[in-house]
Amino acid sequence: MAASTVTDPVLLRSRLDSLRAEHAALKQRGLQLNIARGKPSEEQLALSDAILSLPGPGDWKTEAGEDVRNYGGDPQGVPELRALMSPILDLPASQIVAGGNSSLAMMHDCLVWALLKGVPGSTEPWSRVEKPAFICPAPGYEKHHTMCVEYGIELLPVAVTPTGPDMDAVEALAADPRVKGIWCVPTYANPTGETYSDETARRLAAMKTGAPDFRLFWDDAYLVHHLSGNGVTRTNIVALCAAAGHPDRAFVFASTSKITLASAGVGFFASSPANVAWYLARDGKRGVGPDKLNQLRHVRFLKDADGLRDHMEKQRALLAPKFAAVLDGLSRRLAGTGVASWSNPLGGYFISIEALPGTARRAVELAQEAGVTLTVAGSTWPHGKDPQDSNIRIAPSYAPLADVKAAADIIGLSILLAAAETLLTNNARNKVAE
Amino acid sequence: MAASTVTDPVLLRSRLDSLRAEHAALKQRGLQLNIARGKPSEEQLALSDAILSLPGPGDWKTEAGEDVRNYGGDPQGVPELRALMSPILDLPASQIVAGGNSSLAMMHDCLVWALLKGVPGSTEPWSRVEKPAFICPAPGYEKHHTMCVEYGIELLPVAVTPTGPDMDAVEALAADPRVKGIWCVPTYANPTGETYSDETARRLAAMKTGAPDFRLFWDDAYLVHHLSGNGVTRTNIVALCAAAGHPDRAFVFASTSKITLASAGVGFFASSPANVAWYLARDGKRGVGPDKLNQLRHVRFLKDADGLRDHMEKQRALLAPKFAAVLDGLSRRLAGTGVASWSNPLGGYFISIEALPGTARRAVELAQEAGVTLTVAGSTWPHGKDPQDSNIRIAPSYAPLADVKAAADIIGLSILLAAAETLLTNNARNKVAE
Repeated sequence: MAASTVTDPVLLRSRLDSLRAEHAALKQRGLQLNIARGKPSEEQLALSDAILSLPGPGDWKTEAGEDVRNYGGDPQGVPELRALMSPILDLPASQIVAGGNSSLAMMHDCLVWALLKGVPGSTEPWSRVEKPAFICPAPGYEKHHTMCVEYGIELLPVAVTPTGPDMDAVEALAADPRVKGIWCVPTYANPTGETYSDETARRLAAMKTGAPDFRLFWDDAYLVHHLSGNGVTRTNIVALCAAAGHPDRAFVFASTSKITLASAGVGFFASSPANVAWYLARDGKRGVGPDKLNQLRHVRFLKDADGLRDHMEKQRALLAPKFAAVLDGLSRRLAGTGVASWSNPLGGYFISIEALPGTARRAVELAQEAGVTLTVAGSTWPHGKDPQDSNIRIAPSYAPLADVKAAADIIGLSILLAAAETLLTNNARNKVAE
Repeated sequence: MAASTVTDPVLLRSRLDSLRAEHAALKQRGLQLNIARGKPSEEQLALSDAILSLPGPGDWKTEAGEDVRNYGGDPQGVPELRALMSPILDLPASQIVAGGNSSLAMMHDCLVWALLKGVPGSTEPWSRVEKPAFICPAPGYEKHHTMCVEYGIELLPVAVTPTGPDMDAVEALAADPRVKGIWCVPTYANPTGETYSDETARRLAAMKTGAPDFRLFWDDAYLVHHLSGNGVTRTNIVALCAAAGHPDRAFVFASTSKITLASAGVGFFASSPANVAWYLARDGKRGVGPDKLNQLRHVRFLKDADGLRDHMEKQRALLAPKFAAVLDGLSRRLAGTGVASWSNPLGGYFISIEALPGTARRAVELAQEAGVTLTVAGSTWPHGKDPQDSNIRIAPSYAPLADVKAAADIIGLSILLAAAETLLTNNARNKVAE
């Protein structure tokens, strides 16, 4: 990312003064805009208002005649909900587990069971491995990172490319037997927005791993969350792994949290028959199984895979203008300055900005002073430490469109101001050194 | 338990013949009665039918203004639900966590976090302890046992008395540093029905333990599940532990699974401030928090602690006649025979029978032949192995009252027949030996 266009000291000085004046004026306005949180807006949640009174009086029986109010029934989850998700996940319902309200919790449970028991193919529980490690494309999702940190699993960052993680780096790291897995957000990644190419998925499925029980933690959180009309085509990672002779490599996770209600949705685990059997055997000793009434509620609301897709069109209609507003605001402030580049995602929940190295933290601080709360700088990196101090994550979904528009402009200004401050300081230093 | 009244060989032979004839006639009838499952009946679940359409359109805000549909909010759970449970649990709402649909899952999570991280007061994670062990009053709840077996925690059974576990045995075992906890169902225990006395609770709170991080896993699943009008008075184990200088000893669990809907209720964790902070720190790294919409749903339905108690009166009206029918059926068949004793619980979900040692498995088999499915004999003991082969668990809640009546009679017959078979065989053996 070249910053050559603003390195002329005189030009820079004049711009710094005018940017500072603008920033000072904004501070006076006392705005309170928040685009830190990757969560649905009230309008999005209102699309699912019918759920608040479903399934309705006397409606508690599945097609198979099971009482979803009671203990027992299919421990894999309500069959018609798994059938509904089957075309979405491109896997038979028998390879899908419908769980509780959080796919992240299902990832956590897979991780602790792997640590305490091992997974199919393990020779010992992962907690017995010296210095177990996970590969994590960075920037990435902080809750994946904190989960590993919590259990002493080292995080090994690899760079993100437009087609997914840097596969040469991934393959090199995966050759180490202590490396047990990789975090993947394969569709519209958090926060960088790219979708893994077929080639990336194929290499992940086929690569040699040092650990025979290596797992792709395939968090397909945004699999139907398209911003463009056509959307992307997902790769069927479970099928690719099977074709490559590693049938049990992929743990796939999905969720309706950003389809229906964020706190009250349904999470899914999908994988090979052996992994599903392993999951159910562990989960059966954890508790009484998932909330099947909420699963039936979702069947009644979404009806079928087409109903789900139609619902996502309504989500898109609310989300796409907000993403456009951010991109527009950033362009107007930053295009041609050379101090930042940013993603233009075709789906998902985030726009990721790469600012001038060493300025992200300052830019977020400046935006905060001007009334815009952003995700804490660095939080997309393991341990919250962005080695370049360059990544800024924007989550446009929650705030009203007008706020998003105002915030995008202020963020652009803050990035520019932080860059000008830094460049001018460097310039002065260079002067002294000359 | 004396069996002297039926040891006369002539009398026994004549009774055996008539019991066999009765049993054969029952087999012909092809009954299908199931009293194996400790789960609510359809009538009980119908008491909560209103939940199926709650909270209703547009009702998604807590008193504090939080949106229960979305991410975020109070990670400890909806405050008004915790306030509702406060008088029930006799603890401030700040010491109560409202969770997902399964208190058993919360116990599991505490156990895996203890294994991987340790609890307040731990010097190392429990998984680093050589041969960690838990005390379990037996007969007990099989899902407590299987959870320990799953994670390699040895189960140390102690006898059950009418006032709780045999405390001399508990204190002796707890002195061993590898013993990390004890499973307790302190109110109307599963399956034995007794409620721990104040003295038992006081001794559990005060006893010296070899492990500084010893925990009472206090599963108060039946705390408001009274069968008699007055109910029992619970002891406040958290307060007792604090008074005894062990403020963090008790992990208390409760659930609305057998108050509202078995699969779609809310579980609770209640403990000392340090334990609650520990739980929340762990849980915050697990997922997106509990289903708060379901928590609000429960507030709308139960309204307050008195509403909950009123609801339990309706449950009692459905359950008490079934328990009475079992006790009546057992009495008519078995009173005075000396071959069985049984519990007469003041609450909870189970009646526990102690049959003649060596006959429980056979009695369950005979009942099955006559059309009554019972809990598998032995399943109330660790690893499913009842050392005396004497315990039979009856769960009268699920089946219709008429079925319960018929089943109780058949169970009584089966216990008697199994005893007569055994005694006659012994008698014949003794004859040979003479």
